[in-house]
Order: sequence, then structure tokens, then C-alpha cells
Amino acid sequence: IVQMAMAGDPDIIHDFLLPANGTVDANFFTYTGFRVLVGGGPPTAFKVLKATLAEFPALDGQSVSYAVLEFPSGTTNPPHTHPRSAELLFLVDGTLEVGFIDTKNNLFTQTLQSGDLFVFPKGLVHFQYNADAQNPALAISAFGSANAGTVSLPNTLFTTGIDDNVLAISFKTDVATIQKLKAGLAAKS
Amino acid sequence: IVQMAMAGDPDIIHDFLLPANGTVDANFFTYTGFRVLVGGGPPTAFKVLKATLAEFPALDGQSVSYAVLEFPSGTTNPPHTHPRSAELLFLVDGTLEVGFIDTKNNLFTQTLQSGDLFVFPKGLVHFQYNADAQNPALAISAFGSANAGTVSLPNTLFTTGIDDNVLAISFKTDVATIQKLKAGLAAKS
Amino acid sequence: IVQMAMAGDPDIIHDFLLPANGTVDANFFTYTGFRVLVGGGPPTAFKVLKATLAEFPALDGQSVSYAVLEFPSGTTNPPHTHPRSAELLFLVDGTLEVGFIDTKNNLFTQTLQSGDLFVFPKGLVHFQYNADAQNPALAISAFGSANAGTVSLPNTLFTTGIDDNVLAISFKTDVATIQKLKAGLAAKS
Amino acid sequence: IVQMAMAGDPDIIHDFLLPANGTVDANFFTYTGFRVLVGGGPPTAFKVLKATLAEFPALDGQSVSYAVLEFPSGTTNPPHTHPRSAELLFLVDGTLEVGFIDTKNNLFTQTLQSGDLFVFPKGLVHFQYNADAQNPALAISAFGSANAGTVSLPNTLFTTGIDDNVLAISFKTDVATIQKLKAGLAAKS
Amino acid sequence: IVQMAMAGDPDIIHDFLLPANGTVDANFFTYTGFRVLVGGGPPTAFKVLKATLAEFPALDGQSVSYAVLEFPSGTTNPPHTHPRSAELLFLVDGTLEVGFIDTKNNLFTQTLQSGDLFVFPKGLVHFQYNADAQNPALAISAFGSANAGTVSLPNTLFTTGIDDNVLAISFKTDVATIQKLKAGLAAKS
Amino acid sequence: IVQMAMAGDPDIIHDFLLPANGTVDANFFTYTGFRVLVGGGPPTAFKVLKATLAEFPALDGQSVSYAVLEFPSGTTNPPHTHPRSAELLFLVDGTLEVGFIDTKNNLFTQTLQSGDLFVFPKGLVHFQYNADAQNPALAISAFGSANAGTVSLPNTLFTTGIDDNVLAISFKTDVATIQKLKAGLAAKS
Repeated sequence: IVQMAMAGDPDIIHDFLLPANGTVDANFFTYTGFRVLVGGGPPTAFKVLKATLAEFPALDGQSVSYAVLEFPSGTTNPPHTHPRSAELLFLVDGTLEVGFIDTKNNLFTQTLQSGDLFVFPKGLVHFQYNADAQNPALAISAFGSANAGTVSLPNTLFTTGIDDNVLAISFKTDVATIQKLKAGLAAKS
Repeated sequence: IVQMAMAGDPDIIHDFLLPANGTVDANFFTYTGFRVLVGGGPPTAFKVLKATLAEFPALDGQSVSYAVLEFPSGTTNPPHTHPRSAELLFLVDGTLEVGFIDTKNNLFTQTLQSGDLFVFPKGLVHFQYNADAQNPALAISAFGSANAGTVSLPNTLFTTGIDDNVLAISFKTDVATIQKLKAGLAAKS
Repeated sequence: IVQMAMAGDPDIIHDFLLPANGTVDANFFTYTGFRVLVGGGPPTAFKVLKATLAEFPALDGQSVSYAVLEFPSGTTNPPHTHPRSAELLFLVDGTLEVGFIDTKNNLFTQTLQSGDLFVFPKGLVHFQYNADAQNPALAISAFGSANAGTVSLPNTLFTTGIDDNVLAISFKTDVATIQKLKAGLAAKS
Repeated sequence: IVQMAMAGDPDIIHDFLLPANGTVDANFFTYTGFRVLVGGGPPTAFKVLKATLAEFPALDGQSVSYAVLEFPSGTTNPPHTHPRSAELLFLVDGTLEVGFIDTKNNLFTQTLQSGDLFVFPKGLVHFQYNADAQNPALAISAFGSANAGTVSLPNTLFTTGIDDNVLAISFKTDVATIQKLKAGLAAKS
Repeated sequence: IVQMAMAGDPDIIHDFLLPANGTVDANFFTYTGFRVLVGGGPPTAFKVLKATLAEFPALDGQSVSYAVLEFPSGTTNPPHTHPRSAELLFLVDGTLEVGFIDTKNNLFTQTLQSGDLFVFPKGLVHFQYNADAQNPALAISAFGSANAGTVSLPNTLFTTGIDDNVLAISFKTDVATIQKLKAGLAAKS
Repeated sequence: IVQMAMAGDPDIIHDFLLPANGTVDANFFTYTGFRVLVGGGPPTAFKVLKATLAEFPALDGQSVSYAVLEFPSGTTNPPHTHPRSAELLFLVDGTLEVGFIDTKNNLFTQTLQSGDLFVFPKGLVHFQYNADAQNPALAISAFGSANAGTVSLPNTLFTTGIDDNVLAISFKTDVATIQKLKAGLAAKS
């Protein structure tokens, strides 16, 4: 049985989409916002640098984008989803614990070494963790959409004002625990 | 600027997909699994009855499915996402608190009365809560996919075995709080 | 051999499409036009109430819509097609004769009882009939498009001004019969 | 507001789909079934010759097909729809009356002369008629699907066994008129 | 394993797209630019006449277009690709040598006679050649996109200003040969 | 006017596609074929390392893939197209001359420095050249398809057996020049 849904963005039926001013040259197709990575030292907290539709308008209609992920020792990219694309992570430097959970609640985890790729299927919850106490990790992730989107779950759930009672019932805990989680995330966001 | 991604499932280029045995009659296009709702009393816990690809194979390639949601007083449908479709909820009976959070962390909440519709955009975290202390609520939800999928966040995050330390760092709390959440959900799942 | 065509509407690559005024709140995602169904008595003629792109703009890009169908005794929803979606009918109350014809001219008919679902595949001619002499029938139909469209065949063929001669040749009858059909439909449209 | 639905068939992500025997040569990509048109005289009744997925398997995944339409004087291609594609008609010889009806019941008609093109939008009811008492007409139609499908309305409605009563109510006429239409179409099908 | 990519243009979710002035009549759906072919003699050089989105705006969203190809004796349609559609060629008159190369560098060639069809798969390099010393050839090609696009390789490679050195290295030849090719094409473009 | 065509591969409507043996673990989602890049010295000729559907089956239905491009001094990636995706190139090390030609024969060229991104629109002819006499260049390219495909133009045109005469007419040169190009490419392929 063939069971598929569509992914990716639609392409333009011209070669590319003209920007509002109506003219393009080669600079329009070039993005220099990642030059800061060259020769830069590692950050002190987990950091994401993106080249998507928002930063690089020439990607409109081209169905592809990048993110560079920098993990100091002991940091995570917290559980999150991308509503509009799978993620293909390429670990350029360091080691990384990665995982995702499918819709049947199976957890898949892996320890990646430098040079490894890992694919997080579209729309599923996933996370990364640099467990190495000494060394930072650096990864490049490609997406099959110009605007994959990110739903970061700790913030989405506990810093947007969802009613304490609804969360307590949903997480089968007490309101005090919910309030503690909210306070911790609010303090450090 | 036109910015779109594709939704829905692809249709078959025949009228319908034949099942494995190669023959169809009108019964193939009929699903009787919702008859139990007729005349049935309300359940004692939140309950979902689905008519998707899994239960009703004729939906393959037809890009549509249903769920019926029953909420006794004070129950929630915990925060979750559908990776492959928006949800159009029709509140048939009772009242319901609903909400979703967009990818910029804006929370949208509404109190629905009987007869109201609410649309949860594709891929975003959302929840429902019957705050009425006396009366149950009943809703029918339509999806623009034969297999929208569900990622229930309390279970995905806290009952699938994600490392305590990764969760503690991600939720900016301590391991004890994570273990308490896991225990609570495990006990009642 | 894999043979598919695409269905459904494309999703937006933002979370939702902003309306013209550029702002949204929770009311934008809420539709109250179905409240009239609550406590309302049955109509005296076949009646369709819709919640599609036209009535509920937040559905734009979300690939889903609803119609509520009310059938007094002995009424039909005449043969018609939806160019842009399959229809998943949920018979909430009463009984209903339903049928569709595939592109090889096979007729599939079914008698539905309360609680039954029936799927009309995309683009095919179909109809419903409440044959019960005593009781009305009520159905909710979901579509995997925000704007499925409807081509009602009696009106499309006989009330839009197609030349009598073309219709007589096409239906292998005489012009007088065509004119009689036109007059009957015109009088009662 | 951007409002689109997807059309056309999905392409294969290999260059072409291998047939069951696993090998292809240039003959696989060649179709000779239209050679009969070369030097052939006009037929005595309206006739359609198709080159679609069924006749020409190499079209699978390539999203395009052809039909050649031959109209002796005074013949019609009766009202019909193509569920999976628009039709782009190229009138090679003769003159032709054409028309379609949109979903708001507007009729669009045109008299074409040799060399003219006319596009029938996807999924809408349309027809052609050669009103010339002396000369045949010949048209080539292209479709943006390898399997556009055809729903011929006179036959779909009146030769597939739909209940007389349902049709009489739907067409706002009497059962005798329905039976007369059925008999006429059955005799000449 | 099912492996597909999407082809064709998206359809509009209304019946057709209104032009800028907001009104349509039957003329909007009619294109008369091919009337010049009726009774016209063969051209003296290879010539293409197109009916695509640019010439015929009603094709927008309808996923189909035409080209008429006229080949005097001994002329070619040079190697080229269409980025957005397969091509289904119908040889109406004469004979024609055709060929395409797949992504594994297999060449498929065929000699077509009048009445034959040949499909050039989407995105692959292909060409046609009228080897008949006496007779012209005439073909109609259908595309499953309103704007298939054409990348003509001799001109793309050798008349757009690509650096001589880059071309010499790429084609494993010397700069003098590249300059000779450029001069020949420039003189006759 | 909205004018779009679809890009990317369709997603699966399950979370991922099971391989033939029916079971998956985390290794299925991991690809180690790029480890050879870690600590490896630069190659002596232009070299491409790919992670696509063929090398990494878990990408099936996930609409994303990678290639790593290594350019010793003075080498090119010859003019080519990818039929099924745009390419987003990230220059990790060195400098690189890049260019593409649109379907109106405009050439866009750029000199990239380390850290720069450049997007080559879908289906268009493009090339890269390391003009630096001393230093190698290293780039990572992302594609919005699991199987973007590559049509290398020098080989497609001159090593697959296309008739000398067809090529000479197409490139407006003599047969001797065509044979010289063929010999040069054949010798070094």
C-alpha cells in the first residue's frame, strides 16, 4: 500500500523569485552571515546560527536551508520539533548524543562521532546533547524547506502562559511542580 | 512574497486504491466503528475514537480523516502536535477551553461553546480542557490527511526513556523534578 | 507500479496566514456560524451549512473544511462532484442512502445508519437520499481542502444556458425533453 | 491571499520508472498507437483516441498525456469532467463550439476556428460540438496528468443504475422522464 | 520502496485565476496565436511556436502548455533540458531522429515516423534532428507545466560569458577550441 | 500573480519508511560514510562524496541530502544540472568561483570566501572553480531532495554517443571539432 504525504516547499515556476525591488545580481544568491564562524572560538552556551528564508531571501521557492549548531561541553539543544522538514545533521567536530521519539513513543538514541550524519524524521520530537566534559561539538544541519520552523518544547510548554491547572492535569503532577518548572525556565530564558 | 509548503496527502491517480485482495464493494467505503457513539453514555476519562488510515483503509489517498473526542468534567487532551495536518475541531456538546502556541511562542486561547469550530494550525502544540465541573464535552475533529499522526508531549518527553540529565538541562530544572514527573506519568499511563 | 496524483491544498510555510489587517487573536481561529445548529429544528428542505475558506478565513493554508447536511424525509443532495477533495461523511442522525459512480461507470451504493462513515473518493459523482418517510437525517462532512468546491450537476447541466441541441445530442433525447428538464429546474431553483 | 491546491502527478525521483521486466530501451519511450490517424479518413461518429498511462506505460511519473478527438458533422463530445487535470485543446481542423461551466454556474462558450487553443480548467464540466453541417473537426488535447480520467455525465447519471426516484427528485422531474432518458442512452450506448 | 518527487504546477483552489483587471469571458480561455500555422508554408530554419503562461495567461494554475516544432530538412533542435516538465512529442508530419541521455549517461535514440509519440523524461538532456534530405518535419509537444522552461545547452554553455579557462578544464580541451566554439555560436545566434 | 511549481520529495505519511527487513534501530538513521573526511588530506583531483538515498536509505521520504565537494587548486566541478533540487553550497575552506545561467541566458558569477553560502536555483546549469593556485577548497552542499540527481554536461553531451553530425549542427561547428572534444573527454573520463 502506498502511503505518502507531501514534503518540502513548492518551487517557483520561474527560475527564482525576484525580490521586491525587482532586480537581482549574484549578491542576491550569496549569504555571508556564516563568515563569523570562520576562526571564531566556541560560544559559552548552546548557539544556533541559521540561514533560512528570513536571513537569506533567495531561498524562497528553493526548498533548502541550513543551521549551524555549536555545543559547549555539557549543553543540550532541548527537545523540539520542526513542523515543515526533516533535519539531516552532519557532526563536523566533537561527539554528540542525539535522539528522537516516533509517534509510537519509541526512543531512538545514538552517540555520534566526528563525520557522522543523523537524520531526524519530519515533525518528530528530537534533541542533541554534548556529553563530553572537555570538548565542544559543532554540527551543520540541512533542511528540505526554506523555513522548517522550530517548536522548542520547554519554552512552548512552560513559558507561554498555559494555565497551571491544565498543565498539572496533562503532566499528571501538581500545580507546585508546574510552577517550579515555569520559574526555572523563565529565570534562564 | 509567496511562501508556501505543501500539505495533505497525495491523491491516487486512479479513483481509489484497491485493497490487497483486489476487489471492492460499497462496504469497503463504509466505516461502522463510530456506531458505538450512538446512545453511548459519556466515558469516565478523556477518550479519543479515530477513523484514520489504520482503522478505515479506504481513506488511503483520500486525504481526510476524523477523530471524536470525549471529555468528562475536568479532563484535558494534553499538549500534543499532529505532524501531518491541521485540526478543525467542532464542539458538538458542552464547553471547552482550547489553545495553541505558534513558533514565536504566542499562546492563543479560547472558550468554545456548543456549535463552535476552532482550527489548530498544522504542526503546532495545542491542547483542550473541559473546565466545566458538571457537564461532559463532545467534539468531532477533521484532519486534512488520512494519517495526521499524534505526538503526545507528556508521554513523548517523560515516558520514553530520555536521559534524566538531558531533560534536566533542557527544562532548566533538577534531576529530582524530572524523576518525579516521569514517575507520575508512568504510574498513570 | 506507483501511480499517484497530488491532493489537498498547500500549507503555508509560516504557522498561519495573516489576514489583510495584519493582526490575529484567538477569535481569528474561531468560527461561530454553526451555533445555529444547536437546538435548531430540522429544515423543511435539504440544506447545507458550510465552514470553508469563504466563511472562515483562518482555514487558508490549513487544508481542511466542514459542511453540515440536513435532510428532511424524502429529500436528496442531487448528484454532484467536488473538484478539489474527497468527502468523508459522518451520519450523526437518521438513515441515509448514499452512492457514487467511478470513472469506469460502476455504481457503489450503501444504506447508512446513525454513526456510520462513508468516503466519496475525490472528483467522482455522488449523491445522498433520505428515504425514511418519517425521520430527518443529519450528517457532518469533512473535506481535505479549505475550498473543495461543488459542481451540482442538475443545475450545471440544465440551468446555465447550454444549447438545447447540444444537450439533446449528448443525452440522446429530443429537444422537448431537454426543455422540460430545464423548465422544471428553473421553476424550482 | 494566496489560495492554491496542487495539481499534476508526482514525478518519480529516478529518471523514469522501470517496467515490471526491469529493462528499458528506446521503444519503451515510443508510442505508435496514433499512426492510425495518418491518412485515415474521418470516423462516422465522435471518436477519442488516447495516449495515457494505460496505453503508454512510460508516461508513469511524467505528468502528461494526449487525446485526439474526431468530430463528424453535428456530433458532440457530451458534458464531462476530468478529475485529475485541465485540458488544453488545439483545434487542428474544422470549427468547434466549446463551453464549460464554473462552480458558480457561469457558462463560458466559444466558437473556435482551425489553429485555436482553448483551456478547460481542472475538474469543471465541459463539452464540444461540431455545428458545421459539412465538415468534420479534428482536435488534439493535452493533459497535465498521465491519467486525467473522464467522467462522462450522461452515462454516469443515467446508465449506471442510480435509483429512478433519486434522479427524479434531484432533477425536479418525474420518474417517466428519467426512464425515457435512461432508455435513450441505454439503446445507443 | 516508494520513491517519488513532485511534478507539475500547483492548481488554483478557485476554478481559475482572475487576470489583473478582475474580469474574464470566454476569450480569456482562448488562444489564437497558433492560427499562423494554418496554411503556412514550412520555415527555412528550425522554429518553435509556444503557448505557455507567457503567451496565454489563462494557463496559470492549469499545469499544461504546448509547443509546435518545425524542422526544415537537416535541422536540429539542439540538446536542451526543460527544468519543470517532461515533454510528450507527437510527430504530425515527416520523420525525426530523437534522443535523450539519462543521469547514468545512457543514450536512448529513436527514428520516429509520422503519427509517433515519444516522451522525454523530466529534466533530462534531449534533442531532435530531421535527417530527411527532402522533407520538413512538424511536431506538437505537450508539457505538464504551464511554464516548463528551456535550457538550450550550446547557448547556455558557450554564449553567456563563462570563463574560457573554466570551460577548457571542464571540457578537457584547450582554450582555443572553446574560443572557436564560442565564435561559431555567437556568429550564428 | 501566483506562479509556482512543486519541489522536493513527498514525505511518507508514517514517521519513516521501514527497510525491506522490516526493522529499524538508531543505526538505520545514522550514516558513517563521511568519517573518511575527518583528518583526511585533500584529494589530487576534484572529488564528490555523497549522502543521498542510494548511500543512506533512511533519507527515503525525508527530502534532504548532502554532498561534500573537494577542489584541489585549479580544478572545476564542470557545468551540470540537478533535475530534482536546488543546491545550497556552504564554502567551509578556501575560495571558490561559482556561477549559474538562468533560462534567459543570464550568467551570475561570484567569488566566495570561506564561510559563504551560495544558492544554485533548481534545474539550472551551474559550475564551481577553485582559481587559487596554492590552496584547496572544501564545500558542503545541501539539497532539498533525497535524490537530486546530476546531469554532468561535458560527459552527457560528448561521451554518450550522440551522433557527430547532430552535435556539429547543434553547436554550429564542424565534425572535426566535435570529434576532438569527444576524444579529449573519453581519454580522461
